[in-house]
Amino acid sequence: MASTDKPTDPEYNKGAPPPPPPSSTVNCFVLDVTLRVLLFAAALTAVVVMVTSDQTKFFAPLGIPKAKFKHYPAFVYFVAALSVAGLYSIITTLASLSVIWKPNLSTKLLLHFVFWDVLILGLVASATGTAGGVAYVGLKGNKHVGWIKICNNYDKFCQHLAGSLAVSLFASFVLVLLVWLSVYSLHRRIPK
Amino acid sequence: MASTDKPTDPEYNKGAPPPPPPSSTVNCFVLDVTLRVLLFAAALTAVVVMVTSDQTKFFAPLGIPKAKFKHYPAFVYFVAALSVAGLYSIITTLASLSVIWKPNLSTKLLLHFVFWDVLILGLVASATGTAGGVAYVGLKGNKHVGWIKICNNYDKFCQHLAGSLAVSLFASFVLVLLVWLSVYSLHRRIPK
Repeated sequence: MASTDKPTDPEYNKGAPPPPPPSSTVNCFVLDVTLRVLLFAAALTAVVVMVTSDQTKFFAPLGIPKAKFKHYPAFVYFVAALSVAGLYSIITTLASLSVIWKPNLSTKLLLHFVFWDVLILGLVASATGTAGGVAYVGLKGNKHVGWIKICNNYDKFCQHLAGSLAVSLFASFVLVLLVWLSVYSLHRRIPK
Repeated sequence: MASTDKPTDPEYNKGAPPPPPPSSTVNCFVLDVTLRVLLFAAALTAVVVMVTSDQTKFFAPLGIPKAKFKHYPAFVYFVAALSVAGLYSIITTLASLSVIWKPNLSTKLLLHFVFWDVLILGLVASATGTAGGVAYVGLKGNKHVGWIKICNNYDKFCQHLAGSLAVSLFASFVLVLLVWLSVYSLHRRIPK
């Protein structure tokens, strides 16, 4: 389609190549929407798996009757951060869909996407780190300080933590891919 | 300089506006170099403050004779991640300086910068989160699980942790600014 519109004027390429054809813009945004839906699924899964991790034991081992994620500020922060990422992914999926219907908005939107995606990446990566650091103490304990392990007694709780952390790590990579995709799309529009 | 080269051909602006003048490219890269030097200073400070945090007490409180950062895998990961960020900042400062002398390399380099800056941001943010999560347990303890506080006895150790974490949070923001600056510079080169 686009190649047939190319002018034969030899001066044409001196200024700048034409902007990428609308079909490739739309393709980029289809991939963008797919990644944002994946991000939403990952954030929702991470939150649900974390929130449903609570475990109670009748014969309280180590004097700890319950393992609840709310007892750990790190996991509360994790749930809050991943919820923000989930909401953000809904809003940006809609914004990205709007470009598929109106491709002329795309350059400005890509710039906004990168600005916000980077912030959300920082949030999700830090939340994954925070929860991961505390979960590791729960798994291994710390004999130097006398922090006991909890995972040998609360297996379901720790399996949920591990699953939730793995999914949020995946969400971080999806955010990295989203930034890369937006920047690559911007780069393709620059005259060589 | 560049304005005198502008052709008077009325068709000129139909294709694309000219790329930004070399002086503004250089200005962007001067800001880029400044931010990368700041990143290096922040990463180095965070590592040095963390590594020098060890504290020994003669009358071992709580049966813990020493507070050493090496006893906490989270802080070891933090030091490793911030060291990587410091090395990365040296390499990219040199690359950014090369553009000030050879501005024609700049577009490709900006793309590479964003690709890597995003990864390093993920690394630094997750390391800050990991160390912050464990430091918070050290500060407040966790009475639900019986993890004791250590900061009421090891004040110097915890002051170093807090300082190091604050500086690495600053490093994360510098990385966000670096991504924003690169993306903004790319965006300015796109024909409207």
